[in-house]
Formats: sequence, C-alpha cells, structure tokens
Amino acid sequence: MNAYVTPVAGGAAVFAASPLVDFIRANRFDRPTLVLSREIVARNYRALKAGLGRADIHYAVKANPAREVIETLIAGGSRFDAASRGEIELCLSLGAQPGHISFGNTVKRASDIAFAHAAGITLFAADSEMELDKIAGHAPGAQVYIRLLVGATGADWPLSRKFGCAPERAVGLMDHAVSLGLAPVGLSFHVGSQTRRAGMWRDTLDQVAAVWAGARAAGHDLSLINIGGGFPAFYGENVDAPTEYAARVMQLVRARFGEVERIMAEPGRGLVAEAGVIACEVMLVSRKSDRDMHRWVYLDIGKFSGLAETIDEAIRYQFVTPRDGDAMGPCIMAGPSCDSADVLYEKRPVMLPTSLKAGDRVLIRNTGAYTSSYSSVGFNGFPPLDVVVI
Amino acid sequence: MNAYVTPVAGGAAVFAASPLVDFIRANRFDRPTLVLSREIVARNYRALKAGLGRADIHYAVKANPAREVIETLIAGGSRFDAASRGEIELCLSLGAQPGHISFGNTVKRASDIAFAHAAGITLFAADSEMELDKIAGHAPGAQVYIRLLVGATGADWPLSRKFGCAPERAVGLMDHAVSLGLAPVGLSFHVGSQTRRAGMWRDTLDQVAAVWAGARAAGHDLSLINIGGGFPAFYGENVDAPTEYAARVMQLVRARFGEVERIMAEPGRGLVAEAGVIACEVMLVSRKSDRDMHRWVYLDIGKFSGLAETIDEAIRYQFVTPRDGDAMGPCIMAGPSCDSADVLYEKRPVMLPTSLKAGDRVLIRNTGAYTSSYSSVGFNGFPPLDVVVI
Repeated sequence: MNAYVTPVAGGAAVFAASPLVDFIRANRFDRPTLVLSREIVARNYRALKAGLGRADIHYAVKANPAREVIETLIAGGSRFDAASRGEIELCLSLGAQPGHISFGNTVKRASDIAFAHAAGITLFAADSEMELDKIAGHAPGAQVYIRLLVGATGADWPLSRKFGCAPERAVGLMDHAVSLGLAPVGLSFHVGSQTRRAGMWRDTLDQVAAVWAGARAAGHDLSLINIGGGFPAFYGENVDAPTEYAARVMQLVRARFGEVERIMAEPGRGLVAEAGVIACEVMLVSRKSDRDMHRWVYLDIGKFSGLAETIDEAIRYQFVTPRDGDAMGPCIMAGPSCDSADVLYEKRPVMLPTSLKAGDRVLIRNTGAYTSSYSSVGFNGFPPLDVVVI
Repeated sequence: MNAYVTPVAGGAAVFAASPLVDFIRANRFDRPTLVLSREIVARNYRALKAGLGRADIHYAVKANPAREVIETLIAGGSRFDAASRGEIELCLSLGAQPGHISFGNTVKRASDIAFAHAAGITLFAADSEMELDKIAGHAPGAQVYIRLLVGATGADWPLSRKFGCAPERAVGLMDHAVSLGLAPVGLSFHVGSQTRRAGMWRDTLDQVAAVWAGARAAGHDLSLINIGGGFPAFYGENVDAPTEYAARVMQLVRARFGEVERIMAEPGRGLVAEAGVIACEVMLVSRKSDRDMHRWVYLDIGKFSGLAETIDEAIRYQFVTPRDGDAMGPCIMAGPSCDSADVLYEKRPVMLPTSLKAGDRVLIRNTGAYTSSYSSVGFNGFPPLDVVVI
C-alpha cells in the first residue's frame, strides 16, 4: 500500500509508522528537502533520558540547529552543548537558560569566550594550556573540564586525534587551570561517532577512570564527568534501543565513577537522526561502458548539499524508492554537482532497483543529523538543503 | 617592510605586488574573509586568452560565482559554462548572452533543461542515453557535445570516473542523439584538475582525437572540440605562466584536430584562484602530548567553511603569517569546528613559525577558486566565508 516503505530489518517498524512518510507522500518538493518530526525528537529525548537517569542531556546543537528542534528539546527539559557563539545565541534566543549551556568546543575564539561569559555561561571545555589562558582571560573564574584523547574503540566513525589531550597531560592542565584562577571540575571524552553497542564504551571508560583517579590523587576534587556523544542511529546495521543502550552505558559509568556529583551526556545523532527523512530525486541512471557491472545513479543531492557524512563512505544511508519491489542491482551513487569528488558510494556499491530512472523520488532514511547544516551555501548554483519541520 | 610577504619561490612576485595584500593589511575582518581582486581576474583572462587565441573561454562559474567576477569577465569578453539553473540565471541577470552560455553538467534536472532552452541556451553536455532523452524532450533540436571519460593524466587532482562515457560509446550516443532530433556537434573531456604542465595534455588529447576520427568516419560532421578546464594555479609548486601554457595546449590541439570550426576552453581555477586571498586567524596552538613532534594549529576556517579542497589533502594551500621570519616547525592544521573530520593537513604537515599563537592573522594565498561556494550554510554555528571584492 505504501510504496515508500520497504521491509528493511531493524528500525523498519519505526519508519513504517512514521508521520514523516505520510507527510512526504502527501507533498511535492521542488528541491531536496529534509523533513523533520518534532514528535520523534521529543520521543527520542524521553527514551534516552529514561536510560540516562540522573545524567543531564546536553544536546549537541551542531547535529541539527533547526529552531524547532531546539524549542522541542527545551520544552522536554534538555540542556545544550554549543560549538560556537552562533549556537549559544540560537539557544538563548529560544529561551534556554545560560546555566544549561556548555561551551564544549576546545577551540574557541577569545571574543566568543568573553561573549559567553557575559551571557552567563559558566562551563567551558579545554584540552591545552593556550585555551585555558584564553578562558582565564575572558571568563575569569569559570568552570572547565579537560577533554581527553582516548584510544580507538569500535565506533563506526572513530574520531581523529583532533580533540583532547593525552591522558598524562590532564593533571598538568588542571594545575595550570588552578594557577589561572579557574575551577577544573572534571573530564570529558568522546567514545567515537556511531558507537553501535554499549559494550564498546568499556575500554574508553577504563582509560578515563584511570585519569580521574590520578587527578583526585593529585588533589583535584572533581565533580563532573562528561561522557560526550556517540549514541547511535539506525543506518542499516542493528543498534540497541536508546533506553536500553543508555542504561547500559550508565551502568558502566557508575561502576567506574561511583556517585559522582554531576554527569553530562551530549547526544546529537542519537537524538535527531531518526527524526528526519530527506526527499530527493533521481537525476540520471547511466553506464560508463558496455562492460560496466555497475550502473551510476545520480541524485539531486550530494556531498556538498547535505550528504557530507558520505566522506570516506563513513555513514551508509538507507535509500527507499517507489520501485523497491523490482529486481535489484549494484549502483555507484553520486551527487548532481560538476565535482568529481561528489561521489557518495563507490567502494561499496548500493543495491537499487534496475528499473530506477530519472524523475523517481528517493527517500533517504534517518537523515535528521549532520545533513542540513553541512550543506554548502550554493555550490554549483544549487540551493542549500531545504528543511521542513512537522 | 611588508610582514605578510614571505619569499616563496615562483609566484611570490605576483603576490608581493598584489593589491590584495595592501587591502588586507589596511583592514580588519571579524570573521574569515576572502578578498578578491577584479583587476587580477581581468588580467588573468587576458593572459589566458592571449594563449588560447581563437578558442572561446567559457568560464566555469562554479569556481567562483561572485557577481563581480562574472561582471568583470563579461566586460572582458568571456563566455560561461554553467552547472545549474542557478548559475544560468546568475549569468543572464548580469548581462551574459544566452548564446554565450553552455549548460555543461552531464547531470541535469529535466525542468532546468526546459528553463535553459526557453532562455535561449542551445548547447548542452551529455554522456548517456538517458541524458540525451531528457535534452531531446525539453530542448528539442539542441546542440549537444558528448563528454568522454579519459585515462589518468599527471593532474594534481585526477578526476574520478564520475563524468563521461567510455570512448567506445561515443559514436553510439551520437547516433542516439541524431535519432532524437538533436545535433551532436562535438566532444568534450577534462584533463584533470590542476594539470601543472601543458605537456601532460598530450596523452588525453591523443585519446580524444581517436574518438573524433572514429565519429567522423561514422558520418558525424563534428565542429566543436571542448577542451574543458585543468588550467593550473600556483599552490607552491611551479606552474607555467598562463599565456605560455595555453599556447602550448593550443599547439597540441591544432596538431590533432586541425582547423576545427569551434574550440571551447573552460578555465575556472586558472582564471580566479590567484585573484583571491583569505584572511583568517589562529584560534589555538597546542600539543597533544609531551612526546609529540608536531604542534596542532587550529584556524578559524576549515574544511566546512571554505577549505573543502583540502579533502584528501589534494590542494596544498600556502600560508603567510606575520611571524614568518622566526624559526619554523612542522604543524598539523585543523579547522575550528567540533568535527573530527575537519583536519586540513595531517599526512603531510605544514611548516609554520614556532612562535605562532592564538589571535595571529594568517593569509591563505591563491584561494579565489573553489572556496566561498563550498562553504557550509553554518556548520557548528559558524557563518559562511565572507567575500569582499576590490
């Protein structure tokens, strides 16, 4: 009955029941459009919160800064993690309390620190001396937590070494913070994007707990553990349900940190990915040569208009077409721009109906996170990904 | 005297003499800003045109769609290659003649083909049956050229297989075009982005000439050869001067295609890259551990705010700092976003002054192409790359 719903294992039920599909079926869109559901955002928040218990959820605004998402989360009781002055201004303008916003980027412009301090924000991240110097200079007396660089986990997208200091530097940075009049209150880390199983947190938490014990032994009376993000969304491989997943992570946290005063979690993807579906269109289906095993399928959305997370084929989106009952064959997928790097999946082709053709509508599932905000301002003259919130 | 000018071999003279540096030195910018010079765009156009002779320059608008760039090029006599309806509208709105605009994307939306046809555009690219079908359906009788997929060259950024058909398919596609009432007038190809030496065109031109001969033998009276882009800019490795480079390429073209009626070239980078300098700022300098050989230098611009061509470290930009006289050391460079993929150069670190610190202004040379239009709408709450034209 519903041509857009295919029997995909795991998560299919949620998709079939989604108000998103009904809305998309009932509407036409002139250009690629992300449709977001407030209802699913609110439901995901409640589900994660049920598992996280007394931990505070600080939504990672960067995952999707749509104002309706922020409003829905404020109404649900969420707090926020901001990457920039722009995100802080957004949250404040929609009614978030300054005390509920952390400035979690370890790379901050000095004037933005001053802005945050003046706005009443008191909690900042750092992983280096120079950042602590900037915080002390522009937010005197602030609380800081030190971000740790932790070893590789089983995450689908392990993080680079960009953020965090080596464990052996943490106590020195806390000493430096104290010498500057700052209050080093705790530690943060990131287990890696899209960590599909709660058990994958174990090794990382062990590493952090060792640093925690060392800092306390050195006289730092820590009160805050920030467990970051990593909460997964469904992209075709099974993931645990959010409440169960979060509860297991909290069990692992409690076993190592006991009754620590304050626990923060920063889900982004885990809160909003499944609240969005992109409606787009097939532009072209072709073969390069008569000997080609694969067809090329070109969509009207690509790496530079919302699907940036296909870089290195890291996130593998699920595609739904009106012809999914037909015979399937392997395809290389690409975006519409005149840019040879705008190829979505080539190393691991995607199975799509052999009958697919230009003009067919394609839905891309679970695209509520890290899509619209990555979109370019207008590369190749294509407008940014449109967003409709229902 | 001028702290921002460092003695870099090749191209340093142009940079030293640039009005861009004077303008940047005399101004402050609140955020990362691309400063573009109309004068340099006009000069580059004249230099390339002098070498290309009777070939028509169709500027690849996607390289930089700033209206002042388009206006300058119209005034200079340039034609345009558009990737989308948006780019066509831009060129028309600034006074370009429809007959001087080619619709060069091989992946076009059917309604955009109809728009272009109604606007008076008569020349379209294609590399597949389905695209020819769309063109015939929405721009009946149009002229089409077939884009070929050519073998690897020595380009700094060889193109993927995304565009073009295998040589053996070209004649079949021309036959198909004729059967649809279209006029297959010629061939196009792309030698690869940033092809630093004219001699690197030789093999590609040989491949195209073989297809050209085959098509003529099959009865297609071709009149157009579109040699695409690939004209290089200076990114630290020596490149030939534009007039000399273009003249050599034309020599190679003439030797293979004789007095073909119409020759098109589509420079983008080669026209505008050296007309722009980005002014940005150091956010942070740090070390991850006491044993680290490299510092990390974080700028306020990154992969998602203008420097997308650092993907795979493909384009290696040249950085100029006010401390370039000091001792230098290797750095990993990264952008300001809370995104672990936002690292610019890690595999091949960049030499920067050891005295560099937060707040220092950094100039990024030759960034007039493929920067501002790649910028995200606001990833992490950072505004898009600002553009100032002088």
